[in-house]
Amino acid sequence: MAFQIRTGKVTSEAIMLACIERIEQREADVGAFVHYDANAALALAKQADSSAAKGPLHGVPFAVKDIIDTDMFPTGWGTPFYDGYQPSRNASCVELFIRAGAIPFGKTVTTEFAYFKPGKTSNPHNLNHTPGGSSSGSAAAVADNMLPFGFGSQTAASLIRPAAYCGVAGYKASHGSFDLQGVMSLSPSLDTLGFLARDIEDFELARSVLCGSTPAKSIDLEAAPLRISLFRGPHWHDGSLEMRDVCSRAMSELKVAGAQTGELACPEVFKLLTEAQKTVMAYEVAHARIYEYSHYKDQLSLQFKQLVESGLAVSRSDFESACTARDRAARILETMFIDTDIILTPAAPGEAPLGLDATGDPLFSRGWNLLKVPCISIPYGKGPNGLPLSVQLVARMGADDDLLAAAKWVDRQLNDLTI
Amino acid sequence: MAFQIRTGKVTSEAIMLACIERIEQREADVGAFVHYDANAALALAKQADSSAAKGPLHGVPFAVKDIIDTDMFPTGWGTPFYDGYQPSRNASCVELFIRAGAIPFGKTVTTEFAYFKPGKTSNPHNLNHTPGGSSSGSAAAVADNMLPFGFGSQTAASLIRPAAYCGVAGYKASHGSFDLQGVMSLSPSLDTLGFLARDIEDFELARSVLCGSTPAKSIDLEAAPLRISLFRGPHWHDGSLEMRDVCSRAMSELKVAGAQTGELACPEVFKLLTEAQKTVMAYEVAHARIYEYSHYKDQLSLQFKQLVESGLAVSRSDFESACTARDRAARILETMFIDTDIILTPAAPGEAPLGLDATGDPLFSRGWNLLKVPCISIPYGKGPNGLPLSVQLVARMGADDDLLAAAKWVDRQLNDLTI
Repeated sequence: MAFQIRTGKVTSEAIMLACIERIEQREADVGAFVHYDANAALALAKQADSSAAKGPLHGVPFAVKDIIDTDMFPTGWGTPFYDGYQPSRNASCVELFIRAGAIPFGKTVTTEFAYFKPGKTSNPHNLNHTPGGSSSGSAAAVADNMLPFGFGSQTAASLIRPAAYCGVAGYKASHGSFDLQGVMSLSPSLDTLGFLARDIEDFELARSVLCGSTPAKSIDLEAAPLRISLFRGPHWHDGSLEMRDVCSRAMSELKVAGAQTGELACPEVFKLLTEAQKTVMAYEVAHARIYEYSHYKDQLSLQFKQLVESGLAVSRSDFESACTARDRAARILETMFIDTDIILTPAAPGEAPLGLDATGDPLFSRGWNLLKVPCISIPYGKGPNGLPLSVQLVARMGADDDLLAAAKWVDRQLNDLTI
Repeated sequence: MAFQIRTGKVTSEAIMLACIERIEQREADVGAFVHYDANAALALAKQADSSAAKGPLHGVPFAVKDIIDTDMFPTGWGTPFYDGYQPSRNASCVELFIRAGAIPFGKTVTTEFAYFKPGKTSNPHNLNHTPGGSSSGSAAAVADNMLPFGFGSQTAASLIRPAAYCGVAGYKASHGSFDLQGVMSLSPSLDTLGFLARDIEDFELARSVLCGSTPAKSIDLEAAPLRISLFRGPHWHDGSLEMRDVCSRAMSELKVAGAQTGELACPEVFKLLTEAQKTVMAYEVAHARIYEYSHYKDQLSLQFKQLVESGLAVSRSDFESACTARDRAARILETMFIDTDIILTPAAPGEAPLGLDATGDPLFSRGWNLLKVPCISIPYGKGPNGLPLSVQLVARMGADDDLLAAAKWVDRQLNDLTI
């Protein structure tokens, strides 16, 4: 889309009007937004169309998860006590997007502190099902054609899971890739910024805007033969039959398409990662959000209060054991990437569960997130309830450019009907 | 001091009154503070004395560097445009100190964005000399007996250098040890919180308050024989004669005291670290502070503007090369710690330079900070101008407890006249 606006094939105003029309039709049902200003966005779109300067994201509207500061919209973190709180600055990611010509359309629903307690958002494919969390609003807005692009974040499974449940592409960068100034901190060694988009090609451009320059390596993985391996991992049998089936089918299709396919066994230490992630997260959350625990205890959900309290009770030796397990697994994972470029693994346990009072299980992302590696979820097929299914691609730490190139190729093989 | 208040040997009120008296005498000359409220602090001290709850830092006053958010004082980051800006929350470190019973006395001067442009602070040992930066106010306040304890931070040399120039103990933790919620972000892979104190024993208690629990390992390095090695490093001859002399004398004294002493050669890759740190810092600052560069360009110092602009021009491949040099040096450093427990190395080029329009050279900390390892500066002797000199102790990544124990032992050997 960015390319089409920049080259004059479509105007920013036309895109903005289509977005606004869709939002007006659907927002009452889907509930993706906390704040937006259609008139301001439309004015910025017209301004973009008449402006000579063409940044790489010129005139492209985007959604901002409501744990990310904006100087034009309040930022409430999904809590009652910060509802309406107006930051004085934009987060770096928002400012870099604006400098690149993009237009911040509004703030999208997050769960409370990007943890478990859901906001008002429904899954646009079936309003009685969860959109997943915590990046619920961005995932639903993109899935429902309200906006082409949204910021999300992930500490446990907050980006890959809602992307999978809503059937959009999701990209969680390598930990530390993108500056987090102005993004609410929950668990600093886990907190990672990422994107949700309809078009997987948008990830590369968005990444280069946030990293401030072109990739260091030439991207050569777009052309097969890609070496891709199925990794069932420790929770394969905790997921649904259709999730296992979709992973197997994707592997078969990619093999037919020319990929060198294989399978990777699950090393013993990987079985410790889910619990290790919980320990690290609880320990860090208890420090990062100690102010709210001290001052707004009565207004916290029971689950969040319990998270802080369990974190305050984590001993330094338990925390250090969890970090040791993580570091051992990371070293083993590096060796696994000697024989494969990309890991294919479940993105979520299956279809989005029924009900809006929980956002599903983070089981299939906790470990990867602890390992800090880049992950992309790609929609592929539907489940028995007609809801989207997805596969997750994982690359070695820092190999985001390779992952993005591989994901484009995989997406074409799995989803491009014109091939 | 914390122990004396907690056990009733001295009241918090008595200590607070002594601090206030000293500040009233000296603040006009030293200029350590941006904001403080003596009456509020005194009221809190009286309240502490009459209160039953005795946290580990019960009734202890502390200073907060003005890049750290407080809900009771504005936080200006050493800039004109955020002067008077009132955050809505306390930084985690401040909140954890308050929960432990400590009393926030006021905000201390930082350089602009904790970078080069100095604030109003003078070196209390000679008002015509710099206190060092960027933690200028906390170092000067502690050195001048205004307060027993202050928070500082380090991205290049912002804690160890002012501690050395002002002649107080300074401790920069392993990167990632302490939560940074509410601490201004400058260069996230380098930004580290730390302490300045008159009494090196206070570091252990403060660390356990921020880490939320007791150390995982028993501290056994307090008893000699400690294995300690002189590391001259790549900049030995860029420093002063008296700095080299003070390091050599310290090694001799520690040998006499029973330490197993040695020397470590400087690996080739260490010669790249100072430049690598500059590259990483510029690249990250350009993203972390892009909002201010976009919105307040005319009010930035020339040096800071140049830092952001040089960072925007850093290519991803230059950034990645700098990270590769860092990672190689970190692996070599790990092997150096097989044969030694602690490295002793210069803390600064020498005495605090004359003049208040610069804060001295960060040369002797950039590399260590890039390597993320814990560092402590210990005052030892005076230079030809009668200003303090210091040595710096460095331990392996994450070995903060060992470093603190070793530093106590070293400090006793070098500075305790009663031995």
